[in-house]
Amino acid sequence: MTVETIASWFRSLQQSITSGLETLDGKAVFRSDVWQRQEGGGGDTRVILDGDILEKGGVNFSHVHGVMPEVIRSESRSAKFFHATGVSIVIHPDNPYVPVIHMNVRYFEMRDEPDGPATDAWFGGGIDLSPAYPQEADVRFFHQTLKEACDRHDPAFYPEFKIWCDEYFTIVHRRQMRGVGGIFFDHLRPEDEADRERLFRFVREIGETFVPVYTEIVNRNRNRAFGERQKQWQYIRRGYYTEFNLVYDRGTHFGLKTNGRIESILMSLPPQAGWYYNFQPEENSEEEQALAFFQPKEWV
Amino acid sequence: MTVETIASWFRSLQQSITSGLETLDGKAVFRSDVWQRQEGGGGDTRVILDGDILEKGGVNFSHVHGVMPEVIRSESRSAKFFHATGVSIVIHPDNPYVPVIHMNVRYFEMRDEPDGPATDAWFGGGIDLSPAYPQEADVRFFHQTLKEACDRHDPAFYPEFKIWCDEYFTIVHRRQMRGVGGIFFDHLRPEDEADRERLFRFVREIGETFVPVYTEIVNRNRNRAFGERQKQWQYIRRGYYTEFNLVYDRGTHFGLKTNGRIESILMSLPPQAGWYYNFQPEENSEEEQALAFFQPKEWV
Repeated sequence: MTVETIASWFRSLQQSITSGLETLDGKAVFRSDVWQRQEGGGGDTRVILDGDILEKGGVNFSHVHGVMPEVIRSESRSAKFFHATGVSIVIHPDNPYVPVIHMNVRYFEMRDEPDGPATDAWFGGGIDLSPAYPQEADVRFFHQTLKEACDRHDPAFYPEFKIWCDEYFTIVHRRQMRGVGGIFFDHLRPEDEADRERLFRFVREIGETFVPVYTEIVNRNRNRAFGERQKQWQYIRRGYYTEFNLVYDRGTHFGLKTNGRIESILMSLPPQAGWYYNFQPEENSEEEQALAFFQPKEWV
Repeated sequence: MTVETIASWFRSLQQSITSGLETLDGKAVFRSDVWQRQEGGGGDTRVILDGDILEKGGVNFSHVHGVMPEVIRSESRSAKFFHATGVSIVIHPDNPYVPVIHMNVRYFEMRDEPDGPATDAWFGGGIDLSPAYPQEADVRFFHQTLKEACDRHDPAFYPEFKIWCDEYFTIVHRRQMRGVGGIFFDHLRPEDEADRERLFRFVREIGETFVPVYTEIVNRNRNRAFGERQKQWQYIRRGYYTEFNLVYDRGTHFGLKTNGRIESILMSLPPQAGWYYNFQPEENSEEEQALAFFQPKEWV
């Protein structure tokens, strides 16, 4: 299985997810910006704006390759050339009761010669949910769905990848997660071709879980009424989301440091965010209750 | 001259600046949050909110000391203990025609014993302006004022510190400055006690320049009418400001990594910011004209 085969499937995933999200939204449609990377490869950034539900969302496909950038050389020391391909998604809904969602699936391949055999390769990815107002049933449903998807491939995956997600998506300086977690995995290195097929099947399953799991969670919450107070809390949580992405997220830093396409990398940032000095939720308010969800917890 | 003498002057500077800004605003007043640092020292965070002009502003004094944190050990290798004191200011006005301003003045002292003599010491600081809609006359006035303040101490200061500021406050991934610059300086190490007095006089002069220079610039612009369009552009520029502070600013990273008081460190972030996918100003618009100001240029 070549990187082109994998990239081609990622591209088809982008298409099926944008279609699924357009159906879910019912009003807005994605526009596509196809871009080339001077040093090799390119991508297709698809953005949806001002939908019925989706205020700002991006579903990005990319397949870039060429000489290994200095900043990722440490990931696989000896290689001189690389391929990186994947799909990356962030959705910011307008309604504060509808969660933000993020998904990424990716594949890296290292080579000593531009067209030589792969000397190293791995899959990575994850999917995580960031509700401003978490509903326990939704959080359990989300984690249960991910666990079932993982379990169909390896019963060891969910417990490991769930903890990895809790740790990765922590806003260290706030001592809390940016949301309610999900799964995160990286450097899944196939041992042989059969193993590559097996890991690819797992990554495909995660990719295909996105539309049904998010559709269910959106539909459960899209008609809930909200006001100024809920918008303000959403802006605060979006501010924290921004802090995570700009201070800690490795993918964002990788993109900024490798001269990536800025508008595609920072499409993950919210349409509006706010920082209110020393905001403390009122005791026993919905907002205070939300905070308990942003600490690691078993959900299934 | 001891670090206590310098810290005491910084505290009086905080007081005179908050008074000056309250007079300028005419409506809101600062509230004070005094805080202690568990490992030694503390500070006084003063915040103004929802003023006539000042939507969100902070004037922070701090004097912290103790065992040298790992993250700054590289700044002065051998020392085991440190004192850091300073005043840090960021003002976000509501009216998009009134510039954001930032100032910082600081003093560090390193010691081998907690109460031993200083083995190393330096002053640092700077003041820079970030208008969403730069007016050439204002930018020239701002730089001229800073140049005159510098020139009274050393004619070499302004040219050097102006370039340093242009470089430091660059949002590398956007290939532009966060504003129109000003001056920035660091590691000004006194050679002897007379030199310490001389550098301290310079730092005091910069601190005392803040209220008059900002008052003039605010008063020139505070009555200009604005609408949705100007607010949107302001949100975009504030988004860039946020990117700079969270991705590049050493002071912010220092604070986050040394377990500083989060609300004091992140008081610099704007009350509201926005990220609009691939926003491009219209040709010949006020917004497009603004962009030319965010590249290094001689202003005096």
